Amino acid sequence: MAVKKVKTKDKHIKNLARIVESPRSILYHEEDLISYDCDGFTLHRHLPKAVVFPKDTEQVAKLVKYCDDNELPFLARGAGTGLSGGAVPLNGEVIISLVRMKRLLQVDLENRYAVVEPGFINLKLTNSISDKGYYYAPDPSSQSCCTIGGNVAENAGGAHCLKYGVTTNHILGLEVVLPNGEIIEIGKDGVPDRPGYDLLGILTGSEGTLGIVTKITVRILKTPEAKQTVLAYFDEVTDGSQAVSDIISKGIVPAALEMMDKTAIEAVESASFPVGHPRDIEALLLIEVDGISAGIGEQIEQIMEVCNNRNVREVKVAQDEEERGRWWANRKTGFGAMGTISPDYLVQDGVIPRSKLPEVLNRINQISDKYGLRIANIFHAGDGNLHPLVLFDARNPGETESALKAGTECLQVCADVGGSITGEHGVGIEKKEEMRFVFSDDEIMAQTDVREVFNQKSLLNAGKLFPTPGRCVEVKIETKEAASV
Amino acid sequence: MAVKKVKTKDKHIKNLARIVESPRSILYHEEDLISYDCDGFTLHRHLPKAVVFPKDTEQVAKLVKYCDDNELPFLARGAGTGLSGGAVPLNGEVIISLVRMKRLLQVDLENRYAVVEPGFINLKLTNSISDKGYYYAPDPSSQSCCTIGGNVAENAGGAHCLKYGVTTNHILGLEVVLPNGEIIEIGKDGVPDRPGYDLLGILTGSEGTLGIVTKITVRILKTPEAKQTVLAYFDEVTDGSQAVSDIISKGIVPAALEMMDKTAIEAVESASFPVGHPRDIEALLLIEVDGISAGIGEQIEQIMEVCNNRNVREVKVAQDEEERGRWWANRKTGFGAMGTISPDYLVQDGVIPRSKLPEVLNRINQISDKYGLRIANIFHAGDGNLHPLVLFDARNPGETESALKAGTECLQVCADVGGSITGEHGVGIEKKEEMRFVFSDDEIMAQTDVREVFNQKSLLNAGKLFPTPGRCVEVKIETKEAASV
Repeated sequence: MAVKKVKTKDKHIKNLARIVESPRSILYHEEDLISYDCDGFTLHRHLPKAVVFPKDTEQVAKLVKYCDDNELPFLARGAGTGLSGGAVPLNGEVIISLVRMKRLLQVDLENRYAVVEPGFINLKLTNSISDKGYYYAPDPSSQSCCTIGGNVAENAGGAHCLKYGVTTNHILGLEVVLPNGEIIEIGKDGVPDRPGYDLLGILTGSEGTLGIVTKITVRILKTPEAKQTVLAYFDEVTDGSQAVSDIISKGIVPAALEMMDKTAIEAVESASFPVGHPRDIEALLLIEVDGISAGIGEQIEQIMEVCNNRNVREVKVAQDEEERGRWWANRKTGFGAMGTISPDYLVQDGVIPRSKLPEVLNRINQISDKYGLRIANIFHAGDGNLHPLVLFDARNPGETESALKAGTECLQVCADVGGSITGEHGVGIEKKEEMRFVFSDDEIMAQTDVREVFNQKSLLNAGKLFPTPGRCVEVKIETKEAASV
Repeated sequence: MAVKKVKTKDKHIKNLARIVESPRSILYHEEDLISYDCDGFTLHRHLPKAVVFPKDTEQVAKLVKYCDDNELPFLARGAGTGLSGGAVPLNGEVIISLVRMKRLLQVDLENRYAVVEPGFINLKLTNSISDKGYYYAPDPSSQSCCTIGGNVAENAGGAHCLKYGVTTNHILGLEVVLPNGEIIEIGKDGVPDRPGYDLLGILTGSEGTLGIVTKITVRILKTPEAKQTVLAYFDEVTDGSQAVSDIISKGIVPAALEMMDKTAIEAVESASFPVGHPRDIEALLLIEVDGISAGIGEQIEQIMEVCNNRNVREVKVAQDEEERGRWWANRKTGFGAMGTISPDYLVQDGVIPRSKLPEVLNRINQISDKYGLRIANIFHAGDGNLHPLVLFDARNPGETESALKAGTECLQVCADVGGSITGEHGVGIEKKEEMRFVFSDDEIMAQTDVREVFNQKSLLNAGKLFPTPGRCVEVKIETKEAASV
């Protein structure tokens, strides 16, 4: 029996290996564990006790039960692309990796849903059904490698969430292993309405603190008949921001409405997919409209008119799918492209009321001046979801701390104008203290009380999401680590 | 001081009157309480201890605190139009009526939200902003009198929820008094993304069992530029059902897609707004498309083509707003119109996958035959939300019991095909036992555990929503009461 080969005296490792039925389904040597010491948020690292790779729900439930019985901290991990540290094993957790549970279990086109295992890659779903004219809407930038299970945990967004909503709007059912090892199923067969409390809602976006999702029923949509994409260049950020509001005010709901500022344009034009954006403009908008062919032309005309009324320097429509693809590839390199203009960067993720866009961008400029650090802005303007990217060089003493402070101040600005501290990246470790910007103690307590119902022993992913002194593990910022991904 | 005039020896009544600062803000004589012994679900009645009418959040919090301190059961009530008994004071509750908290507090057109008090009437919101080109989407049939607070409690739906979603999709923020009197605020200023657990989601649709909502921020939408409405008559129910699937398969998402069967047509044509539907057809579809003018015509053509391919007897487009209005008035009399063809009726509210429509309608026919009771079907076909209306005469011995059994069997059929027991009317008292059709004991326990976090002493609206023996008050069916409303 293969299990004999597990070479360790640690009884827990042996028992965990027995549950996953193979020594190839568990990692426990330090050199193997290093890849699992952080996720896409690299400022805090910690080695897990072990990483196990269950193959089905039953194994997940047994692993969880074992951890619960033996008081071993544990957490779930998908592709590890999260940007707020949700999968970092702060307490030396046993990591339950779901990457081997990656099957597409069912597709029901007539009732518009699909059932997947948590390790199934986001983009693969659209690729599996696009020939039949369907797609899965949430499209985080990491969609070619992130898992739908991770998307559920973080309630992931994406460029096209303005019209179609974030992950929570597309989840119809979940199978979940609770922290005590019980398996529950919420919603099934694509039926959207459920009586009782909205457990589906509370589990989606709970950042791996309430249970481990082992099966997911998602809504699939008909591929829009037509798409058109507009690119508009502005000499003034305010004009660009105002155009965003004007478009929405017209009653047009674009599928995507993205904005980049001058620094961001410099980066994407220096990276892998330059498309020739002028380097001297202050802002560009990338606007996509989709739907029935007949309505599209008129919406595009209205958008062009809005841009013209707001002193646009140039506005153009993608001439074909190839040009549209190039514009999007250019936009989607955004974060990574920062590497071309800065050794390190810290991405923030605030949300503001759309009408506050000019004011907030102005205040972010002031923060940039204050710390002497460039801040690039590349974001989902249509839904007010900002991504200020603080550029810094970790090799310069004190610069990482300054970048972190600048990032926090950006979030404070978002909160001050009535916004929030995360749109789609989650709170994780990164922003747990900043939760105080938007929630009172009572409001945080109402949430941690809910957590305790599910997660009584605090073994599952402790120290995340909430600033609860005495309950959470305190996190020290290890400034020696680079922040770039 | 007015409070002196409260004429009772009951110290609690006196103290409650003191909190609401006026004897005109409390009812406690039996003759005044009778109107509050049930809501739109009339099969169970019970007198409350008192009804209090607070004027603001502070008074609500004080009332709740008083009830909590003195272990008095209590519940919140809006307009009392609920159809599942959520506002029935099963345990002689103190009813906290929110009808005097009915202000429209704020409208922010630029950021597309409005803030209302819970007693604000649903339709008044659209009426307050329609001249500026905006509206509030959820449109339950009771929208001219139901309150938005009640809509939040029940997660109310309506004919136009196919495209626009139910209440939970339109709630951006809530101020809530928790059962211990604490006030929390979740989401604000119309910012849609919130970190932490989705408390907004769990409170919406919690049927008054987790807290009392005292302020609501709702999303408002731009009034669609154009609307067109189609009426299609079918000789076979199966053809009508199949047309529903075909329309959705085309990628068209109608704003509404309603179906009525022969019995329902007989009723609405006998009621206040007849429009001349043929009495000998087996099904009609009422289909509404909205959006940008340019796209509408093509969608209407596709819908007509689908109907023609499914052997439609006649299909026509409303020629003007007046005709469209008449068709909708005819549809919206639906439930009430049953009174013209039956002394009593029981409305059910099941949800099924759209593809199961022909099968389920067939099985409902069999249930009708089994009990010798006519069942009319009038429902939101597009989202598979059925409303079988069991017609009966409470004066005939045993017929009420038969109707209740037939209704329950209809729900069992919905659950059997992978559906659910309520789409928009809630569980309340009516369907708490039927929760077992869709949830295991563990799944129910996961929910009642959440309830206990909020509602530790079980003073708030106990005995509703969940079939928890030993915790809930057992409800006897009082068959002497009529079921008509």
